[in-house]
Amino acid sequence: MEFSSKILEKAVEEMSQLPGIGKRTALRLVLHLMRQPKAQTQNLSEALMQMRNDVKFCKSCNNLSDSEFCNICSSPKRDTKTICVVEDVRDVMAIENTSSYQGLYHVLGGKISPMDGIGPHDLSIEPLVNKVKRGEVNELIFALSSTMEGDTTNFYIFKQIQEYNIKTSTIARGISVGDELEYADEITLGRSIVNRIPFENSLKL
Amino acid sequence: MEFSSKILEKAVEEMSQLPGIGKRTALRLVLHLMRQPKAQTQNLSEALMQMRNDVKFCKSCNNLSDSEFCNICSSPKRDTKTICVVEDVRDVMAIENTSSYQGLYHVLGGKISPMDGIGPHDLSIEPLVNKVKRGEVNELIFALSSTMEGDTTNFYIFKQIQEYNIKTSTIARGISVGDELEYADEITLGRSIVNRIPFENSLKL
Repeated sequence: MEFSSKILEKAVEEMSQLPGIGKRTALRLVLHLMRQPKAQTQNLSEALMQMRNDVKFCKSCNNLSDSEFCNICSSPKRDTKTICVVEDVRDVMAIENTSSYQGLYHVLGGKISPMDGIGPHDLSIEPLVNKVKRGEVNELIFALSSTMEGDTTNFYIFKQIQEYNIKTSTIARGISVGDELEYADEITLGRSIVNRIPFENSLKL
Repeated sequence: MEFSSKILEKAVEEMSQLPGIGKRTALRLVLHLMRQPKAQTQNLSEALMQMRNDVKFCKSCNNLSDSEFCNICSSPKRDTKTICVVEDVRDVMAIENTSSYQGLYHVLGGKISPMDGIGPHDLSIEPLVNKVKRGEVNELIFALSSTMEGDTTNFYIFKQIQEYNIKTSTIARGISVGDELEYADEITLGRSIVNRIPFENSLKL
């Protein structure tokens, strides 16, 4: 692309560093900003800088937070003995949206993935194991996505805490609510039969 | 969406003001920035602010530019008597990429579109008409998109300059290079037959 303005080109260049934003999309976005009042660009720039400078990782669960401990960890209403292990902040938000969980979280910050060069030490696994060691945990719920990497990560953590004899569980795999059986993949369908639940339980939610 | 950090929420809010970026995409983008070095966010913020503050509209053709007159208008190599009328900066870049045009441009900044509340006075039409009035133009090439709005805008400008007896033309409508005839729409196909060109001309590019 041939730009008539170097400054514009620089803005497009920086914008296209974002994941899923190519040069053309970046150009569309910055031209939109050019047509809007200056205040909009200023607000965006300042919000991004403030976020990068001021948002912290919760010292207990590694969730994003404005203060040292996140609002979930510091809430007196939560069951502090149950910890749900998730991959990232979006998973916390997704589970919180269901309003069906009252325990705490532990955000790993990713999954073990040798292909992407992510090993156990790049993730927040040690602080989690330490919590278990200190006897702060009754139940650990694994809520990683059901992929090779997710299963590997689950198993790695499970091995580390096995000796401490706490309860461990994983979220149920099965047919999504509203889905047709005939379109379900066979692994999911198979698991949903093996791990069938008492009918009364299905009436609860 | 329930955010664990207000600052994060603000950043997502601002990011999702951009066209085509919803809340979920915005969250994905800002979380990506959180995982990258601070410098990336800083570069992005600064590039956007600099763009909004320092990029000017060329005083002659309304193209985006770093200086008072854009590099096309101030180039001694261009044919200053031929002006190609386009909708926005992206069209200038697209035509420049073909390397088959040596005249100047005039960027309208949009199309006449009553549905979106855009009238002739919201566009840079008057400066263009003035150029024609001052006798600075030999040929005006209309290169707007072939839609109701584009045709209306072409016709509006044509009416204003009709009396000055300059040459006017519009870019050719026809079957795209590489396209199959059977899939072409009938208006395009019809126009391409009516406005057929000498065979020798088709060998030139």
